[in-house]
Amino acid sequence: MRLSQYFLPLLKETPKEAQIASHRLMLRAGMVQQSSAGIYSWLPLGKRVLDKIENIVREEQNRAGALEILMPTIQPAELWQESGRYDDYGAEMLRIVDRHERNMLYGPTNEEQITDIFRAHVRSYKALPLNMYHIQWKFRDEVRPRFGIMRGREFLMKDAYSFDLDGDKARAAYNRMFVSYLKTFARMGLTAIPMEADTGPIGGDMSHEFIILAETGESGVYFHKDWMNINLDADIDYNADLQPFVDKYTSLYARADDMHDADNCPVTADELMSLRGIEIGHIFYFGTKYSEAMGATVSGPDGKAVPVHMGSYGIGVSRLVGGIIEASHDDKGIIWPDSVAPFGVAIVNLKPGDAVCDAEAERLYEQFDNAGLEPLLDDRNDRPGAKMASMDLIGIPWQIVVGPRGMENNMVEVKRRKTGETAEMSPDSAVIKILNR
Amino acid sequence: MRLSQYFLPLLKETPKEAQIASHRLMLRAGMVQQSSAGIYSWLPLGKRVLDKIENIVREEQNRAGALEILMPTIQPAELWQESGRYDDYGAEMLRIVDRHERNMLYGPTNEEQITDIFRAHVRSYKALPLNMYHIQWKFRDEVRPRFGIMRGREFLMKDAYSFDLDGDKARAAYNRMFVSYLKTFARMGLTAIPMEADTGPIGGDMSHEFIILAETGESGVYFHKDWMNINLDADIDYNADLQPFVDKYTSLYARADDMHDADNCPVTADELMSLRGIEIGHIFYFGTKYSEAMGATVSGPDGKAVPVHMGSYGIGVSRLVGGIIEASHDDKGIIWPDSVAPFGVAIVNLKPGDAVCDAEAERLYEQFDNAGLEPLLDDRNDRPGAKMASMDLIGIPWQIVVGPRGMENNMVEVKRRKTGETAEMSPDSAVIKILNR
Repeated sequence: MRLSQYFLPLLKETPKEAQIASHRLMLRAGMVQQSSAGIYSWLPLGKRVLDKIENIVREEQNRAGALEILMPTIQPAELWQESGRYDDYGAEMLRIVDRHERNMLYGPTNEEQITDIFRAHVRSYKALPLNMYHIQWKFRDEVRPRFGIMRGREFLMKDAYSFDLDGDKARAAYNRMFVSYLKTFARMGLTAIPMEADTGPIGGDMSHEFIILAETGESGVYFHKDWMNINLDADIDYNADLQPFVDKYTSLYARADDMHDADNCPVTADELMSLRGIEIGHIFYFGTKYSEAMGATVSGPDGKAVPVHMGSYGIGVSRLVGGIIEASHDDKGIIWPDSVAPFGVAIVNLKPGDAVCDAEAERLYEQFDNAGLEPLLDDRNDRPGAKMASMDLIGIPWQIVVGPRGMENNMVEVKRRKTGETAEMSPDSAVIKILNR
Repeated sequence: MRLSQYFLPLLKETPKEAQIASHRLMLRAGMVQQSSAGIYSWLPLGKRVLDKIENIVREEQNRAGALEILMPTIQPAELWQESGRYDDYGAEMLRIVDRHERNMLYGPTNEEQITDIFRAHVRSYKALPLNMYHIQWKFRDEVRPRFGIMRGREFLMKDAYSFDLDGDKARAAYNRMFVSYLKTFARMGLTAIPMEADTGPIGGDMSHEFIILAETGESGVYFHKDWMNINLDADIDYNADLQPFVDKYTSLYARADDMHDADNCPVTADELMSLRGIEIGHIFYFGTKYSEAMGATVSGPDGKAVPVHMGSYGIGVSRLVGGIIEASHDDKGIIWPDSVAPFGVAIVNLKPGDAVCDAEAERLYEQFDNAGLEPLLDDRNDRPGAKMASMDLIGIPWQIVVGPRGMENNMVEVKRRKTGETAEMSPDSAVIKILNR
């Protein structure tokens, strides 16, 4: 992308309403714009990051055997009356009356709807195991939306739902999602710690929150210091028994403050870390809670109908954009991990109009474009300092500065955003260095 | 994908409520399931097709220089009060009151919201031309939703919005979208005829509907018979003047029945064709209608502030799924064009459990998978006739049948869904034939 043809409305001033780093930086970097309280438009730069995150989530869900579907945003009230949650859910549910006076709602989650799909089609245990997910906008009418997209009202969530014949098989489905979550977040450069959690309004027997560490986190978290040295194994065979893998991770203590009891903590004080964290995922096993209420049964091997065992598995896709920024930024701006960066490399032409600089910047642009690295070329007229500050603000992982003085010796400057390290080298060396990153 | 691990709930009976082919076939092929009137869940097969169509739309929008953003589904009423459309829009607008008693709505279109984004950030004509689009769910509360996803209430639309300094430049932006629409639909195997249209509630000076031919179309259409022999040129330079290209297409008569006047038609009776059609896209130039009402101005080269000239450009992404089926099906089921097929090739193992058949089916599966052709392997136990009928129903463009008798001579049967042609050949020849399609 050439910056002269892009829409990147950077803000010089920090907006007053932004209390935390991610909100401040997303507004300053022109990633989002507020539409109304807790509701945002994603501008071109923000949309690119959102897509990158969504694609990683999708790939890892597919790898773990989940099937992608797409349920609508607007649901009929009847389904929630069947489960009993229509009255329970309270004011966070956005309730709607359509032109024929039917009660509808903007889905805050989809347990009822997926159970309705299941019961319409599945009759036999032979169709199991089954796990279906969608990545869809949800709405929760927060009483006080804040922190930008971190606690918004309209938000993008991946929610998966598993169906199994019995509790043991449901546990295996839970384990697949547990492990795939660790992989998903690791690919985004995050250490996400699974913490035993309360099941809350979803209900159920077993639950883990996945929490990343950040100073501005909404919860206090307590965990064994060995969590800081976790190294995820490379390959996962989702057909294998994953219980040993899950046991390995859950054996290390980790609780958010609502579940932590300081007086009965099994970890000694010198091994216990206490920091703040942000929830980015939450998984639940809730057995037959919805299948019994809604009549979702299958015939088992003995021919008898039994209610199916279910779990649900959420990832806050839009929230992750803010979560990654909270975990990875400095005074100059955002520091995107390579896997979610909106552009892989920025090429800053210090002197557009200078024939040598223009030719070299274009040549670099073509090479990175052909290699699929999604380059961003700053071809605008602006002060060199302002141009470099902009690339730091929007957090492009690699930056190449092409200027007339360097070009006299066929040299460009290469900078790694994360470390701030810079080095002069020939343009060809710069290409090789960045492609082999 | 292996069918034993997939969720493909085919229906044997034709659902009574389905009046047209696409609705009937989408239900029978397990592509969608109704959630409430005019609102559907997209099951795995349907989601794959929807994604394919969405990606073609996205690629062609990007190629034409439009920038992708994502505006939210829920909009504040204030924006629509500014433009004057809040009261005009009528009962099709889904109006919502949030917990703080603020008036909101589920966006049926986004002219107001994009104008709000533009006016917040753009001050100078130097930022123009600018064209931003999003692919987002919309809601129109149809009084009588019908024909499945063809006239649903919640539907996926691509809508682009162009901003230019004056009418001439806006015309060039309009032309870029006009041409990119022809390319977009051609890539989906469709002949879409642009027809001069009324501007309706969007308002404005110039408008074309893009209509594909189908017996079950909602409108009568009248057009010069040469439209049946249109051949789209391969490459488009979007930086060039596209007026001659647009003139070439608009010089051929084409009108939907609301704009056709039989008594004053310039085409002679023997050159005029009269068929039925389905609207799949609609483009508008409406000048300063919204920019004046909402104060979206830029300073021109002379420093004076002028309201910006706008156009909007819609494609019914979810509607296209039905439109393609209406244009391409037979008694046996759907016939997907290769570019939007949910799977590129089906491998039907007639005898799962037979070591030779299993090994050959798996080998073919791996080869097509590695080549990126997205194979579907039917590895279930079922009658051969039922298995082949299922692949015809869901419309997979190429089908390879692996059976014990053929394998005695190392032969498989290859079928082209579109023509029904079959041929026996070695598995290696089948791979070469299909990869070189």
